Amino acid sequence: MLPIGSETLILTHDSLVEGIHFLPEQDPADVAWKLVATNLSDLAAKGAEPLGVLLGYQLGSDDARFVAGLEDVLTHYGVPLLGGDTVSKAGPQALGLTAIGRATCTPVPARSGARPGDSLWITGPVGAAMLAFVALKAGTGDSTAYRRPAALLAQGWALAPVVSAMMDVSDGLLLDASRLARASGVTLAIDGAAVPVATGNARRDEALRWGDDYQLLFTLPADAECPVAAHLIGTALQAGPDSLLLDGAPPSGTLGYEHR
Amino acid sequence: MLPIGSETLILTHDSLVEGIHFLPEQDPADVAWKLVATNLSDLAAKGAEPLGVLLGYQLGSDDARFVAGLEDVLTHYGVPLLGGDTVSKAGPQALGLTAIGRATCTPVPARSGARPGDSLWITGPVGAAMLAFVALKAGTGDSTAYRRPAALLAQGWALAPVVSAMMDVSDGLLLDASRLARASGVTLAIDGAAVPVATGNARRDEALRWGDDYQLLFTLPADAECPVAAHLIGTALQAGPDSLLLDGAPPSGTLGYEHR
Repeated sequence: MLPIGSETLILTHDSLVEGIHFLPEQDPADVAWKLVATNLSDLAAKGAEPLGVLLGYQLGSDDARFVAGLEDVLTHYGVPLLGGDTVSKAGPQALGLTAIGRATCTPVPARSGARPGDSLWITGPVGAAMLAFVALKAGTGDSTAYRRPAALLAQGWALAPVVSAMMDVSDGLLLDASRLARASGVTLAIDGAAVPVATGNARRDEALRWGDDYQLLFTLPADAECPVAAHLIGTALQAGPDSLLLDGAPPSGTLGYEHR
Repeated sequence: MLPIGSETLILTHDSLVEGIHFLPEQDPADVAWKLVATNLSDLAAKGAEPLGVLLGYQLGSDDARFVAGLEDVLTHYGVPLLGGDTVSKAGPQALGLTAIGRATCTPVPARSGARPGDSLWITGPVGAAMLAFVALKAGTGDSTAYRRPAALLAQGWALAPVVSAMMDVSDGLLLDASRLARASGVTLAIDGAAVPVATGNARRDEALRWGDDYQLLFTLPADAECPVAAHLIGTALQAGPDSLLLDGAPPSGTLGYEHR
């Protein structure tokens, strides 16, 4: 966050590395889409309007496809490419993107603002990217949700003036919720059955731990109305021994993708 | 360049890749220094005041040393780290940096403003990084100029209001001068003997083609006084068949590092 004149800039930087964040055989156009959309999702979670992106591009297997995907996603979101650089191939492809946005509302929503009594919401289902990833690996079925995630910019702008805390869910709902809880100094109690999942109940536990859906997770003061379509999934409590409760108990196992 | 409110932001992004831009055996602290200094040098050439940087960091051989060098260079230039991300190792290390600056003077100096009759200047000698690179490879002698280049921010600020065109010399004086000439639609005539070289006359031809010195190259209108210590090395002429003349003739051979 960077105050400049009367404006507040929001800056994000995310990298994607071949073999870690995308499969070597993936269409470079989809990689470009995801690189941009995940950064714009960070801006969405701050209620920021994107002003442009800078790309650090390492030459890869099909640069023309990458450029085509980049044009697609920048056109889709109406965001200009402001600059960047291109470097030679050297092992697995590494890509970096900086996105610059303008805050539409101050104070800018942060992870740290949830207070006991606030309600906890999510904009849409988790687990869609998980199913899409399985489809991509299997070479059959719809893999769009994994390959071309959406950045929920309009929802972020509508939510920014009302939320007490907000973030995008990139690493898994339970992991990201526990981060929001710790940053805010509260315990978040999630009602597992209230969380919308794209997978059906059989894989609900997995869906709560899978990332890449880029839904917005946010808290609202008890008396606030939610200005967008979203699902009430829990409550913020006074900080207890556990930062996160799922159906009344600390969730078992891995909460999400810890190192991506 | 990004107008925001009453300010103009300058954004730069440069990447360094192991084995291409730095030696695998180099001290990661020096790599951090160079990554930041080369981006700040881009800001210097625009007369911009750095506001902060974002780092795309891929874990490497000695992350603690990298952090130490990063702290050094950010402290040296008084620039905050605003954000970024860290990704796992996967082959040669790739690093990206975005630097954000505030224009101190508008219009912001560009490569394209040189006009026939302007004088051509450089802030200091070329070839220092070449000698330093040889010292680094040999493991003896002073390699500072290659490892820890300076970003000439104060000179850039002083020059910005007076220059007709400006850029930093990263890829070699002759190559970068030919870029400035083409962007401006002029021919630049350089007096080879007037160019300060760190190498002595025997390696003058090489020094004119070696990069990594990050001197500022700029043109001044004929009647302007140069506000910083610098060397007059040539003149801008009406565009002729060649964009660059060295001692009256197009220079022979490679002009610099074409793909870095």
